Amino acid sequence: MDGLQGRLFCGKGVEALLRTHTCGELRLQHVGQRVTLCGWVDTYRDHKGVLFVDLRDRYGKTQIVFSCDAGEELHQLARSLRPEYVIRVTGIVERRPEGTENPKLATGEIEVRAEECEVLNRAVTPPFLPSAPDLPGEEIRLRYRYLDLRRPMMQQILMLRHRMVKIMRDYFDELGFIEVETPMLGRSTPEGARDYLVPSRIQKGTFYALPQSPQLYKQILMVAGYDRYVQIARCFRDEDLRADRQPEFTQLDLEMSFVDANDVMTVVEGLMARLFKEILGKELALPLPRMTYDEAMERFGHDAPDLRFGMELTDITDIARECDFRVFREAAETGQRVRGLVVPGGATRYSRKHIDEMTEWVKQDFGAKGLVWFRVEEGNVLNSTVAKNFSESHLKAIGEKMKARAGDLLLFVADTFDVTCKALYGLRKRFGAELGLYDPRDMHLSWIVEFPMFAIDQEDGGWTAMHHPFTSPRPQDREFLKSDPGRCRAQAYDLVLNGTEVGGGTIRIHNPELQQEVFEILGIDEARAKDRFGFLLEALQYGAPPHGGIALGVDRLVAIFAGVDSIRDCIAFPKTQRAVDLMTGAPSEVDPKQLKELGIKIEK
Amino acid sequence: MDGLQGRLFCGKGVEALLRTHTCGELRLQHVGQRVTLCGWVDTYRDHKGVLFVDLRDRYGKTQIVFSCDAGEELHQLARSLRPEYVIRVTGIVERRPEGTENPKLATGEIEVRAEECEVLNRAVTPPFLPSAPDLPGEEIRLRYRYLDLRRPMMQQILMLRHRMVKIMRDYFDELGFIEVETPMLGRSTPEGARDYLVPSRIQKGTFYALPQSPQLYKQILMVAGYDRYVQIARCFRDEDLRADRQPEFTQLDLEMSFVDANDVMTVVEGLMARLFKEILGKELALPLPRMTYDEAMERFGHDAPDLRFGMELTDITDIARECDFRVFREAAETGQRVRGLVVPGGATRYSRKHIDEMTEWVKQDFGAKGLVWFRVEEGNVLNSTVAKNFSESHLKAIGEKMKARAGDLLLFVADTFDVTCKALYGLRKRFGAELGLYDPRDMHLSWIVEFPMFAIDQEDGGWTAMHHPFTSPRPQDREFLKSDPGRCRAQAYDLVLNGTEVGGGTIRIHNPELQQEVFEILGIDEARAKDRFGFLLEALQYGAPPHGGIALGVDRLVAIFAGVDSIRDCIAFPKTQRAVDLMTGAPSEVDPKQLKELGIKIEK
Repeated sequence: MDGLQGRLFCGKGVEALLRTHTCGELRLQHVGQRVTLCGWVDTYRDHKGVLFVDLRDRYGKTQIVFSCDAGEELHQLARSLRPEYVIRVTGIVERRPEGTENPKLATGEIEVRAEECEVLNRAVTPPFLPSAPDLPGEEIRLRYRYLDLRRPMMQQILMLRHRMVKIMRDYFDELGFIEVETPMLGRSTPEGARDYLVPSRIQKGTFYALPQSPQLYKQILMVAGYDRYVQIARCFRDEDLRADRQPEFTQLDLEMSFVDANDVMTVVEGLMARLFKEILGKELALPLPRMTYDEAMERFGHDAPDLRFGMELTDITDIARECDFRVFREAAETGQRVRGLVVPGGATRYSRKHIDEMTEWVKQDFGAKGLVWFRVEEGNVLNSTVAKNFSESHLKAIGEKMKARAGDLLLFVADTFDVTCKALYGLRKRFGAELGLYDPRDMHLSWIVEFPMFAIDQEDGGWTAMHHPFTSPRPQDREFLKSDPGRCRAQAYDLVLNGTEVGGGTIRIHNPELQQEVFEILGIDEARAKDRFGFLLEALQYGAPPHGGIALGVDRLVAIFAGVDSIRDCIAFPKTQRAVDLMTGAPSEVDPKQLKELGIKIEK
Repeated sequence: MDGLQGRLFCGKGVEALLRTHTCGELRLQHVGQRVTLCGWVDTYRDHKGVLFVDLRDRYGKTQIVFSCDAGEELHQLARSLRPEYVIRVTGIVERRPEGTENPKLATGEIEVRAEECEVLNRAVTPPFLPSAPDLPGEEIRLRYRYLDLRRPMMQQILMLRHRMVKIMRDYFDELGFIEVETPMLGRSTPEGARDYLVPSRIQKGTFYALPQSPQLYKQILMVAGYDRYVQIARCFRDEDLRADRQPEFTQLDLEMSFVDANDVMTVVEGLMARLFKEILGKELALPLPRMTYDEAMERFGHDAPDLRFGMELTDITDIARECDFRVFREAAETGQRVRGLVVPGGATRYSRKHIDEMTEWVKQDFGAKGLVWFRVEEGNVLNSTVAKNFSESHLKAIGEKMKARAGDLLLFVADTFDVTCKALYGLRKRFGAELGLYDPRDMHLSWIVEFPMFAIDQEDGGWTAMHHPFTSPRPQDREFLKSDPGRCRAQAYDLVLNGTEVGGGTIRIHNPELQQEVFEILGIDEARAKDRFGFLLEALQYGAPPHGGIALGVDRLVAIFAGVDSIRDCIAFPKTQRAVDLMTGAPSEVDPKQLKELGIKIEK
């Protein structure tokens, strides 16, 4: 009994079971055995009166043969089969006739000659077939998610997800982490994103909030002495969904006591090395490269740069300040920056029309004032409609600074540092993909560290927390906390994989006075701090250890490891950008009695 | 480097770490080593100028010694230490002087002679000490949960929970189950308990519901071909909380395709055997005993009987029908039942006053009309205030039927079957504990099977589902589905541990017509069925395999394995019976802006 059921039941009670093997496990060694399989009719062929059915389950496909001498009754039943019928077949495993083997199929050397067949369930004609090569639109896929999830690729991804999460849990268990479940019904602390609220029936007029992350609870667990905590945690954010966000998402959440940033990063690196090895069969060189936030912004214009390729940004503000081209000079003189990048071979590849489109794009999407370009011609001569505004020596200096070569296209943005970052990051990303500057199967991991503690709030001009208000400043920057908050760097670290931030963490503040000070800088006054985070501030007074942690985005990690673009393909039942579950129809109207019990009314 | 950090970092980057060992790992073999520990000051003793500090972390306690020759500065710092201060100590591991070893402590043979000490964080005087023998009331414990969670017992329970859940995951992974995360933001299907609702901001006036269980999703996963699904799933029920319920709880949820009830039970038995072995060090004899629902109700008056002891119920309706005692005879003649139990040695143990109290209790709590009692005297003579109403031969017949012996107390209830069950179950449970009829450390597991499909709804007199509306009837009972629903038995199985239902499962309906039929019996008309469960009914049409599963209550299982009464001691951050988190203050009032965004108003 070598089948699935044998492994499962160790020979006990096997008789009662509906099948002896799965559709993925029969091989030449089984030839001659009488087996029973269950599964879905994947395809169906009639070849000169012999009926061939590919029977499918999560484990694979097996070819079933209803031969001409199978008897009229069985043959009639076989002819009645339709795609996606659920059947149970008993028959003899046979070697396929020479020349008819299917090397693409793990079971491709054998077939099962049916002796009995039972229809366990019929299927009406589905709107699309799991085995069809053409996918319907995503709306149809989500509407009939149970059909979409039958596609072998979706099954592979969800099984990959299971394996990755299992590896995470095993890894942290081995390191002495304990998984603790934190509440879903928590308190609203609307400092970050928008909370999902849950009305309380018992205390009418009050609300729970679904957690945006277990942040406060995991810090409390450190105060409580749990030392090493991990959780695969569901988190919620009621945001207007950008392209690839979900209202509920999953993070690998961890926290450690008596550690510094280096310790947390080392633990995460060990996990990533294991995932690389067990999932991709690759060795990951450790330690991972680290780059400061400032360096990343200078060289790539973004705090999560894709390091699979070069095309770094170059600053020419010094040259711009000296030149006659007003756009450049004025930018340099008013404290703005002039930065650019080199598009190798772009001089011939991109027409004037292309460049005009790019210019429109950086204006529209990134608020840039424009794009200045030069084609590099033979002899490294820079040519452009604006070239006449530059002296030859300035053009030469620019070419040299950019290390330009004939055939290159040079693109510049003269603007605030922020706008130059955004526009050039956008251009770099676009060219990286368009010009095939990297192998899409490459995986590049690195850390971005030493983030600023604070950023300027676009709305009120005050300071906001770059990570979150519980982040500890670097000890050497503590002196600037009050005098020059913008100069303070945090003990923060983001994990970047192929240009996507897949994790972010910090060392937390464990001192209640320092926490209070940071709240003040963030404009959270004492009353508000007490209202929102009173229990954390209080807990910090009763002996909080130094601690820090990180959270990794599980959906995104799975997507990148699976090589798919959308996290919706890595979630069994995702929601649309309007946060709707097209299969169940959630959210939906509810019984007025339910609202009455909760003491709430819908505002007309 | 044999310490925790050594295991963790494999010798890399150890210098940066705050400690070399935990407080639980130093032994005689470490004597002479220079170590650094971090932890909480647990206790503090001054013995003739030598200061002894027990340093505590999750791993254990280690005695730190500040000897008289340690230097004034260090000594002064040591004298400033207070309970729950977080400190870091470097010193030499020494063998404790003979006679001062502490055999109760894993580290009791050594102590650490401090050379350096740093206060990492101070602590204000806590409202209670984790090491104090007396516990404060549960309100204080929940209010300061971070202090309560420092208690070694709480840490042991949460670590036990982690281990049990890890064993579950490993077990199911080995059997080819895959863990799939199902949504928290689902559709309200208010057939069972009350849903927690979450207002949608994007589609104002509509609501998500938090899942009462992943029931529908896991059935959909079977339709989608996932074959074996498992999840440690958070579930929600907005009920008026009984003694030991929580608004959010955790269940081990699983589902299998192409199986019958026996297969599911076999899988669960394998898990229980592993938990018994790895957690309790006990062999669990398999297969577990099985008892039908009808037998359980007859013999024990309950569908989750505590089988650690006997004291079975005995029916004397036949004798009652013949006797002169009006209470008994009328009950028997009107189709009610007369049942009782034997309290061994109860004749002397329980006074008339005791019995009167019991009578009041069964009247109040179970709606019984009363309690009829007999003391069994020498010569097996039944004596009671009502004995004169019985002929001697009837008294003798009762005594014989009950197998009464001198000194026993016999208790009878004459009432509807339901009331006799409830009252006698209550009495049996009470006597089992009061008379010490079992060893509280005993663990008895069994299955209750063949539940009725339907029960009479107390409110409207119609049929309700005993388990849930997706439960499949036994094939042999399908013929009674329309003609005599009360006679239908379900393919259902409950797992009972020490008189507590710790799990319940069923084989599901995979045929859409049968599902529709069951909905009809339950009074769920087609429109309503379509509104609530339309997607499931639809999915069943596209090729649903036979499938079934079970859900086990993780919180309760952990509590029983940990030997504690309350599931609140097995949940890191539980809520009170009013569903309040006393630490965070959830649920709380929220910003009116939040409600406005959601388009809801609080009803005054």
